[in-house]
Amino acid sequence: MARAVGSNVRRKDGDAKVTGAAKYIDDLTFPGMIYGATIRSTVPSARIIGRRVDLPPEFTVADHRDILGPNYVALIDPDQPCLAVDHVRHVAEPILLIGHAHKHALIDIHKRVTIDYQTSTPNYDVELSDLCFKKISIDKGDIDLGFRNADFVVGGEYRTAHQEQLYIETNGVIAVPGDGQMTVYGSLQCPYYVHKALVVLLKLPPDRVRVVQAETGGGFGGKEEYPSILACHAAILALKSGRPVKMIYDRVEDLLATTKRHPSIVRHRTGLTRDGRITAMDIEVLMDGGAYATLSAVVLSRGVIHAAGPYRCDHVRIRGRAMMTHTPPNCAFRGFGAPQTQFAVEAHIDRIAGQLRIDPVRMREINALRPGDSTATGQKLGNDTSALPVLRAAVKRSQFHKKRKQWAGSNRGIGLSLFLHGSGFTGGGEVRLASKAALELTARGARILVASTEIGQGTRTMHAQIVADALGVPYDSIDVNDADTAFVPDSGPTVASRTCMIVGKLLERCARGMRTRIGKLTPAQYFKKHGPFTVTEEYEPPPGLLWDDNSYAGDAYGSYAWGCNVVELEVDPVTFEVTPIKVTAVAEIGKAIHPMMAIGQIEGGTAQGLGYALTEEVVMKDGRMANATLTNYIIPTPQDAAPMDIGILESPYRHGPFGAKGVGEMPIDGPAPAVINALRNCGFDLRSIPATPERVMKAPRI
Amino acid sequence: MARAVGSNVRRKDGDAKVTGAAKYIDDLTFPGMIYGATIRSTVPSARIIGRRVDLPPEFTVADHRDILGPNYVALIDPDQPCLAVDHVRHVAEPILLIGHAHKHALIDIHKRVTIDYQTSTPNYDVELSDLCFKKISIDKGDIDLGFRNADFVVGGEYRTAHQEQLYIETNGVIAVPGDGQMTVYGSLQCPYYVHKALVVLLKLPPDRVRVVQAETGGGFGGKEEYPSILACHAAILALKSGRPVKMIYDRVEDLLATTKRHPSIVRHRTGLTRDGRITAMDIEVLMDGGAYATLSAVVLSRGVIHAAGPYRCDHVRIRGRAMMTHTPPNCAFRGFGAPQTQFAVEAHIDRIAGQLRIDPVRMREINALRPGDSTATGQKLGNDTSALPVLRAAVKRSQFHKKRKQWAGSNRGIGLSLFLHGSGFTGGGEVRLASKAALELTARGARILVASTEIGQGTRTMHAQIVADALGVPYDSIDVNDADTAFVPDSGPTVASRTCMIVGKLLERCARGMRTRIGKLTPAQYFKKHGPFTVTEEYEPPPGLLWDDNSYAGDAYGSYAWGCNVVELEVDPVTFEVTPIKVTAVAEIGKAIHPMMAIGQIEGGTAQGLGYALTEEVVMKDGRMANATLTNYIIPTPQDAAPMDIGILESPYRHGPFGAKGVGEMPIDGPAPAVINALRNCGFDLRSIPATPERVMKAPRI
Repeated sequence: MARAVGSNVRRKDGDAKVTGAAKYIDDLTFPGMIYGATIRSTVPSARIIGRRVDLPPEFTVADHRDILGPNYVALIDPDQPCLAVDHVRHVAEPILLIGHAHKHALIDIHKRVTIDYQTSTPNYDVELSDLCFKKISIDKGDIDLGFRNADFVVGGEYRTAHQEQLYIETNGVIAVPGDGQMTVYGSLQCPYYVHKALVVLLKLPPDRVRVVQAETGGGFGGKEEYPSILACHAAILALKSGRPVKMIYDRVEDLLATTKRHPSIVRHRTGLTRDGRITAMDIEVLMDGGAYATLSAVVLSRGVIHAAGPYRCDHVRIRGRAMMTHTPPNCAFRGFGAPQTQFAVEAHIDRIAGQLRIDPVRMREINALRPGDSTATGQKLGNDTSALPVLRAAVKRSQFHKKRKQWAGSNRGIGLSLFLHGSGFTGGGEVRLASKAALELTARGARILVASTEIGQGTRTMHAQIVADALGVPYDSIDVNDADTAFVPDSGPTVASRTCMIVGKLLERCARGMRTRIGKLTPAQYFKKHGPFTVTEEYEPPPGLLWDDNSYAGDAYGSYAWGCNVVELEVDPVTFEVTPIKVTAVAEIGKAIHPMMAIGQIEGGTAQGLGYALTEEVVMKDGRMANATLTNYIIPTPQDAAPMDIGILESPYRHGPFGAKGVGEMPIDGPAPAVINALRNCGFDLRSIPATPERVMKAPRI
Repeated sequence: MARAVGSNVRRKDGDAKVTGAAKYIDDLTFPGMIYGATIRSTVPSARIIGRRVDLPPEFTVADHRDILGPNYVALIDPDQPCLAVDHVRHVAEPILLIGHAHKHALIDIHKRVTIDYQTSTPNYDVELSDLCFKKISIDKGDIDLGFRNADFVVGGEYRTAHQEQLYIETNGVIAVPGDGQMTVYGSLQCPYYVHKALVVLLKLPPDRVRVVQAETGGGFGGKEEYPSILACHAAILALKSGRPVKMIYDRVEDLLATTKRHPSIVRHRTGLTRDGRITAMDIEVLMDGGAYATLSAVVLSRGVIHAAGPYRCDHVRIRGRAMMTHTPPNCAFRGFGAPQTQFAVEAHIDRIAGQLRIDPVRMREINALRPGDSTATGQKLGNDTSALPVLRAAVKRSQFHKKRKQWAGSNRGIGLSLFLHGSGFTGGGEVRLASKAALELTARGARILVASTEIGQGTRTMHAQIVADALGVPYDSIDVNDADTAFVPDSGPTVASRTCMIVGKLLERCARGMRTRIGKLTPAQYFKKHGPFTVTEEYEPPPGLLWDDNSYAGDAYGSYAWGCNVVELEVDPVTFEVTPIKVTAVAEIGKAIHPMMAIGQIEGGTAQGLGYALTEEVVMKDGRMANATLTNYIIPTPQDAAPMDIGILESPYRHGPFGAKGVGEMPIDGPAPAVINALRNCGFDLRSIPATPERVMKAPRI
């Protein structure tokens, strides 16, 4: 039988999507359904001193008093109210909910509501904030000794800005009330996160709350956490009105109110020997969490763990803080803190190479992590450590040195970045999650039961490939259940590049267990003889994988994927517009389960990284996104993104399914520093992104 | 405050329907939803000796072995399998169910399934059937004495045929499976009937099954019972596939497979004095139940109770039987047995008048029931007995005598019919049902919680009018909850002209109870002070209403509505096509809660009755409807139905809400006999319907 793993099988979700049969949340409707709208604060920091609602009785109006359980969005810290009580901490904070049978009756509904505020002075400066959501320290070796061993010390500060996830489909849910029960359909990444938030808010037993993922038009982390508060809002209106409630944001509301990537300030002080060896890394990471904690603690965690980049160093000190400011909360976005800190370290390494007059490739070759080396957290790396292979492949494929020499002094530049990305939650996170996956024998093969969501990235296809081969049956005989909490166990959220390596591995174990039980029969034969059965597996850390959450030391991730980007670009000498000409991206991901989809992930992540580097600028004015439309928040179209040359290397991770590691997030770590390094190659000393024409123009020249 | 009752308030369902916002079952969709199709028998009577299904594994195939509970549609008798096991009793009997993600994959799916039959001889003759579903006897006085008192005896046999309900929207449901639970959305009249069928079939606790009525495009009784089997089918496929399943019949399948009005044979032998007084009525009623019992027992019950028509007679014998034949089951249809038996008695009365040379109006004046008289079951009638008032009003409005004289000998004719219709289930039926209704105080007024369905007839509007006036609040402040078993109590089915008189009365009691509790406050004031509360009321028979199910004697219904139709028509001397020119319909319905909707019910029922009389012919060929399309099963369009003059009389029934009785079914009792009597007036001796040109041409001339 042809193996499914490694071949470009038909996508499980493909037919429905290309024929239009796939139904997104706004395609769904329910008998008696009404629509919901949100009245939001117009000021960034205030006490609420009055509310006046002037609406006829056919409108349903709900506020915090209509919440049965505790008034917060259950996630990590219980600090974010589902509906504001007596104060607001950011523009667009939800205060009131209004429902009506007709969508058009809710247009401009905010004009019929008056909220009286007693405003206070907002703070947008992360360094002036006095509310810290999370502090993390990493210490390896003796930092003072490290600097004593150094011949030089190079310092630098690097800044990144907000970035919007910009999924094609905006956030939306429908809450369907029942008798002591609530069902929520939605465009979402993590059904069990929404489930938990509803169970707490509605004070219902877990089996009386059901969350069903509708077809979802993209997430990129933006539907990891936000759907929980939206589901709570719809559920509150549903309870109050006794009717199903649809709430779907338009683009402006989605841009104004939902989360973005954390802006960051990262400061490096690096000790070096004369020949370019790093002796000490002292790194400070500051992340702007916005108004509430959301997942900032975990974003910061991944940020600091990746802050030293793919480099060996015996003496490392990293200090990270996530701080509160008066902007809408920042939260999950593909990469989850790592793009910020690896932007800093990769821009910094190029500046060091410049100061030491060492070739940037050579600088990385000297310091790159090798098998057997240990990371900043002291994790001893295995044989699938591929910093040097991806670096060498990318340099060669792109003719890096030839072009760099050839373009010297021109308005063309070439730059590179080397990066790594841990797959899955940190070791401690996966142990706490204890994810489950299940596989049910069917008459035609088997059905996958996981909470992992298909959001365009190919979850269903990739899982079915793994199961088909582990079970030894054709790919087409594998079904994948909807991500519906009534049927599937909690496989953890669909985030953190964990869906293949962690959940895929659980499914591989399920399939092997099923194969053992059915022996030499085919599934169809066994089914006919004995009927169906289900195999369930729960996460256990691979032997020897240890992590200590207190000292922040140990095996941070089961494994890492590795990447190297080379960006070639041109700067218009008159307008200072930067045009990427070509991107070479080489990635080592263990095993490409579905090569075409893996390449798709790398292409998409790289394009999104180019947007992060160049054009995507969230303009904040008085705590409010001033360019909340698609006409002035500019993401790259296929025409804007440069031609890409993608190379995939495979170095199997023994505890990944068929050797696979994660691929979803890593590609967005590299483009921004490679762009900045290419601009440096053109003579522009930029240390922040996005590199808009205005900033390039004002940048110091080298 | 303007009273709502008696005025033409805006319909509660009006806005959504005229704007297109109303969502019917085919407008609904669910994540992961697949489509279901039914493989049906192609023969009327056979043993199943083999089945072969040649389908790839992406099809879900289910048969009777996939049913967890007992394999029958729970209603009255457990005789109808949900899916055939080893024999079939009618064409289109469901055998297999097939599901697929794409609707188009199910087109012609029956061609890929082979069912092998060992056929046996079918019987379509109700008089040769040896399986009797139900026998009912009514005996009043001494029938022999009645005939001894007679000067003449007139006999006759009258036949009616099938009629199709022809709701605009065909039958359709969606079953959504959960973890140990099932939710069914559907186009249906009786959510709790469907609920019961699912609880039995799926072996689930009642609180794990939920049935929600979607917006419903007409029912006319055709969605009283049939949705139960369809819901069971969708639920079986949903369980097997683990996915939501949509099953919507196209028009051909709906016409072929679903129920129709029972064909009937009614034989009268009537004793009369020389001056036209009826001394004895001996009536035999035979109803063709089709292949399974469904609701035939209850249809027969209403048929026999109404078989003597609106006439006084001391000595009555009625024998009724519902028999099995090898056609698809017949079941509920507006009128529920009464149109058949009142067609017979009214055609018979005109034949008697002819033989006795008594004017047909005079014949009815002599014998019509008056207040204080007793019916065939011995029910003593109250002051709201309006046979004579409706007769006199209709005769006067239509200038009956003038036209009859004027048209004598022409191809124009005029005929009349006098009829009554009991409102609600029989006394015993309502007591067993013990319906509940509830009313919940809301911030703006009150919300009605009943299982009664809006199927176009105005349920929600009419209930809200009653509650508004009984509670003393504006009509607009009353909301009506969806008919969703998760929220509303079992108010019984939406059938039998009971939704106003029975459920409306329960709501009136709820509203008066609520008014007592809130005292002099407005609902809004009380709500603000004390929060919401709910008043629930349960049916209790009015004092003195007694019914004995064993002797079939007593107060059959709480009250009766009364009607008289005058039909004027013209017969084409060449084609024998009959064109109704005008219908005068006078109805006494206690109180018209919403006059415009009451007139609408009468107009619609009258048009449907004209179709029954003239054009609607179900052509059965080998047990299969041979004209199962709208091109050859002809219902009257607005152009075909004659202009109507509708008169409403009000004689309040003291136990009805604001005096109201039922209006939904009665209008269909009268047109067919009035048409036949008008044809007799033109010289055609027809004793069966429909009076198609072929039958008129072949009819004996008088």
